[in-house]
Amino acid sequence: MTALKKESGDALLDEMLSLGRAAKAASAKLAQAPREKKDLALRAMAAEIRAQAGKILAANERDMKAAGEKGLSAALLDRLLLDEQRIEAMAKGLEDIAELPDPIGRSLGAWDRPNGLKIERVAVPLGVIGIIYESRPNVTADAAGLCLKSGNAAVLRGGSESAHSAVAILDCLQEGLCAAGLPKASVQRLPTTDRAAVGIMLGMTEYIDVIIPRGGKGLIERIANESRIPVLKHLDGICHTYVDAEADPEMARAIVLNAKMRRTGICGATETLLIDRPALKFAKPILDDLIKAGCELRGDAEIQALDKRVEAAGAQDWDTEYLDAILSVKVVNGVAEAIEHIERHSSHHTEAIITANPQTAARFLNEIDSGIVIWNSSTQFADGGEFGMGAEIGISTGKLHARGPVGAEQLTSYKYIVRGSGQVRP
Amino acid sequence: MTALKKESGDALLDEMLSLGRAAKAASAKLAQAPREKKDLALRAMAAEIRAQAGKILAANERDMKAAGEKGLSAALLDRLLLDEQRIEAMAKGLEDIAELPDPIGRSLGAWDRPNGLKIERVAVPLGVIGIIYESRPNVTADAAGLCLKSGNAAVLRGGSESAHSAVAILDCLQEGLCAAGLPKASVQRLPTTDRAAVGIMLGMTEYIDVIIPRGGKGLIERIANESRIPVLKHLDGICHTYVDAEADPEMARAIVLNAKMRRTGICGATETLLIDRPALKFAKPILDDLIKAGCELRGDAEIQALDKRVEAAGAQDWDTEYLDAILSVKVVNGVAEAIEHIERHSSHHTEAIITANPQTAARFLNEIDSGIVIWNSSTQFADGGEFGMGAEIGISTGKLHARGPVGAEQLTSYKYIVRGSGQVRP
Repeated sequence: MTALKKESGDALLDEMLSLGRAAKAASAKLAQAPREKKDLALRAMAAEIRAQAGKILAANERDMKAAGEKGLSAALLDRLLLDEQRIEAMAKGLEDIAELPDPIGRSLGAWDRPNGLKIERVAVPLGVIGIIYESRPNVTADAAGLCLKSGNAAVLRGGSESAHSAVAILDCLQEGLCAAGLPKASVQRLPTTDRAAVGIMLGMTEYIDVIIPRGGKGLIERIANESRIPVLKHLDGICHTYVDAEADPEMARAIVLNAKMRRTGICGATETLLIDRPALKFAKPILDDLIKAGCELRGDAEIQALDKRVEAAGAQDWDTEYLDAILSVKVVNGVAEAIEHIERHSSHHTEAIITANPQTAARFLNEIDSGIVIWNSSTQFADGGEFGMGAEIGISTGKLHARGPVGAEQLTSYKYIVRGSGQVRP
Repeated sequence: MTALKKESGDALLDEMLSLGRAAKAASAKLAQAPREKKDLALRAMAAEIRAQAGKILAANERDMKAAGEKGLSAALLDRLLLDEQRIEAMAKGLEDIAELPDPIGRSLGAWDRPNGLKIERVAVPLGVIGIIYESRPNVTADAAGLCLKSGNAAVLRGGSESAHSAVAILDCLQEGLCAAGLPKASVQRLPTTDRAAVGIMLGMTEYIDVIIPRGGKGLIERIANESRIPVLKHLDGICHTYVDAEADPEMARAIVLNAKMRRTGICGATETLLIDRPALKFAKPILDDLIKAGCELRGDAEIQALDKRVEAAGAQDWDTEYLDAILSVKVVNGVAEAIEHIERHSSHHTEAIITANPQTAARFLNEIDSGIVIWNSSTQFADGGEFGMGAEIGISTGKLHARGPVGAEQLTSYKYIVRGSGQVRP
């Protein structure tokens, strides 16, 4: 904070610090709030979003108009767009979070010491969570809901494109908080979408306990470099599927098609297919299915020899997250070479092996150093909801604190409670 | 790493990168090493330290001589000093770590999904741990032992004062690794104690997964600011003991004396005593005990009125970790004001309440946001060994990943293993 204090004549800084103080104060209240109160707020937020759907749509129209004038891409416009269905999904999402078990106050272990001290480890909130995201307006509600459920105050910084939508949604969230008697400052937005505000935010170590960035690799790396607050990284998903010589050919066909093409824009989509050399004999139908589904293939020479429609893969293809109907395909010599390739090129998100051989599978599952490793199923299952964990704020590719899907439970810390009867340490 | 690559003509940088690559390669081997192999290495390390005690003592003599010539303080010289007892303690420490349960491969939860997917969460190593510490040579063995037990490679950067001692100890550790067939690069030291090497180390995001700094507040804050690798912080311990109106007077006397004076130089030592106003009537003997034990007291006006030997506390006293026979003492109005004071001034390490009233205790234990909260016992129990967790690398005051004592179990991450039978995501 020393660096920040120097500029304290600055109005934006003052505004940011007062937002920080309010968030910290709210977090102390939230940490003590019983489950009923938090769930009441979540349901009131949902009701308010439904009641104010018209206002939210109008605000979104203003964002869409400005975005259209700026000439944003169709994909970005689609991410920005809200309609009645998406608004209903937001409201339903908050109600689903209310149904989840309370992650706070869980006993994570309790034991007695020979001297009679009783030690217990109890889940507590992290405190204040700063979330920096891009244009999808629904993140405002989803992220705030998960933070609230886990007893954390949230400080949100959404993209400027979705500012009007976010303000309208935030208004509903704060109404919901008030209805439950919880502080409005439990969920706040930065006062401006200026970059300068993000810079200040990333230095507010006294008021913000963790930063969660959601977005492209560039945004996340910039934040990780600049932040003085610990960052929970959700990096890209360069996910691999490896088809072993002992794979069931029909299973491999179905899984590979699903892993790549079910939805190409999610981080759990497979980006590289590795084929064991002996499996080449049943690989043609796999490639056919993909091409028929509209997927562009980029392969090494052996894959190109198998199918003339395959383009040549360049060196950069093995390190690319396409998030599109494109797949790089490579021949490897057995599971050892598959593991080697993955360890070199993966983003450590999710990798799958298709094989009928349990020893081969065990080796892959043990040796691959990724958050999620899958045997005989699709990488598209890499998702908190599919894991039965409820809503998630993203998939962590870091190893510290949380790895894999980050849901309400992962947004907690713990403390040790020690109960004695006068013991002193010898 | 981009910033690093620019200077790749630099010999030190090349050396550091090759050290990083070796550490990463070793960590992949360690992650797969069975418990027997790791424990064998730990015991061989201990045997080697005992066998080479003479060499270690000679190396330490050189460090002590240089330190004496530089005019280091008596306290620093004592930290630096090794004798036969301390060497035996190092060896025994490694054998104790071998006895601990293996933290790797533990199933942290397993469940089935309606679609038949079997999901399991399994403990895995973090990877490569960078440890930056000051002059105590035994940290070399303690830290390396905990990293090895938890399947992590260690990159050590000790202070220049203890360089000869550290080299002699590291030699024993690497002999132990070789005896067990594990890579020597599982434990490495930086090639030089130059600051430049630390700077490079803190940017080696590709090779080092987490940095653990051990030392004074200045060192740790500098590292946290500079590091591009996540840092597990072990900050100072400004610990509080609060004596409530309903405390048992004799219990309060015994606990306060122990909490401050048992050892004043450890992070769990109480630095501020808060006394509930009605408890002033039995506070005199508490102060007497402390003064008799050689403790300097710095109090507010009411405490000074109680005992003329108490000096006046200045504003900075409430934010000072003395690590010495000095205690600040303040009168508060009940548990609410005690909590308020602690939340403002504590470093969130350890705080204790002495009271016979369970409701008052519950409020304190719930509302205080510190890693360890204690009822009716001494803050000096804030220690992994006293918690029954075995050796620890320190007490984390951060909330992310690990909080409180950081032992072998806290040096792990986890991954999700998903076992299917051909499921694709609808």
